[in-house]
Amino acid sequence: MKTYPNSISLFGLSLFIVTACQLDSPSQADVEHKSAQHSFPRGEKVTNNNFTGEVWLNYLVETDSVHNVNIGAVTFAPGARTNWHYHQGGQILLVTEGRGLYQEKGKPITVIEKGAVVKCPPDIEHWHGATASDSMTHVAIGTNTNVGGAIWLAPVTDEEYRQHEL
Amino acid sequence: MKTYPNSISLFGLSLFIVTACQLDSPSQADVEHKSAQHSFPRGEKVTNNNFTGEVWLNYLVETDSVHNVNIGAVTFAPGARTNWHYHQGGQILLVTEGRGLYQEKGKPITVIEKGAVVKCPPDIEHWHGATASDSMTHVAIGTNTNVGGAIWLAPVTDEEYRQHEL
Repeated sequence: MKTYPNSISLFGLSLFIVTACQLDSPSQADVEHKSAQHSFPRGEKVTNNNFTGEVWLNYLVETDSVHNVNIGAVTFAPGARTNWHYHQGGQILLVTEGRGLYQEKGKPITVIEKGAVVKCPPDIEHWHGATASDSMTHVAIGTNTNVGGAIWLAPVTDEEYRQHEL
Repeated sequence: MKTYPNSISLFGLSLFIVTACQLDSPSQADVEHKSAQHSFPRGEKVTNNNFTGEVWLNYLVETDSVHNVNIGAVTFAPGARTNWHYHQGGQILLVTEGRGLYQEKGKPITVIEKGAVVKCPPDIEHWHGATASDSMTHVAIGTNTNVGGAIWLAPVTDEEYRQHEL
């Protein structure tokens, strides 16, 4: 996934992977079975500079030139958030756990909770993350990945982040 | 979502919808708040003829000409399944609950469980559903929807379905 390019890890995660429907394989769908207690375990801790605070990434689908998407489950500890960034092909967020924040440049911060669906069209600068007191997990679907990935910008400062408390 | 074209319902569901990042709206992201106990409630019962058994659909993202995807959470009661079908633009399934079955034409049935990720490239005939004894929920992401939606074919007969018990 272009969004979090330095934190790719499909191995060592509690995840089933089924790569099926492959025309070039006459055998049963290739299935990787690993133990799973949650739908999408939180994965590996992100160590790049595109985030503030503790963030975990479980890469469900790497950038795929057939489907033109990438998919990752991302978990933010309280207070954690992305940098400002935009997606050349857009992104859709499905909030699966907790309570978080979403803001596009020049607009107020929006609270997003479990069950929220957020559409981020191409080239719109924004950030997302947990609230100061709650963790938040979303499935992030990068769309139109054939036109490009995420462009990372400056961190969300504490002053910017705390605007939602005012 | 073209995949389940007769069962669209975004209203009356326990779901948050945030349509944000809209260039044409200078105000706060448009947020629809409804109570939510589960990440994605099961939605409305499907009443068309593209399925066998009891199936529910929660349409998270209608076919979107900006992102070129559609997204639905689909829940199958034990024994329920799609008809045979294929997707002109492909589809990715994220299994979020339970235990189900997936088969592409000419290949054995594959068991898919919570945490599974299934890639169905364009134009590959297949079906998916619950096992005979378990329910199954997946988030279904229709990809490349700009090239077309699902093409629905014949039901999966009981004889075909029971092959996984042999």
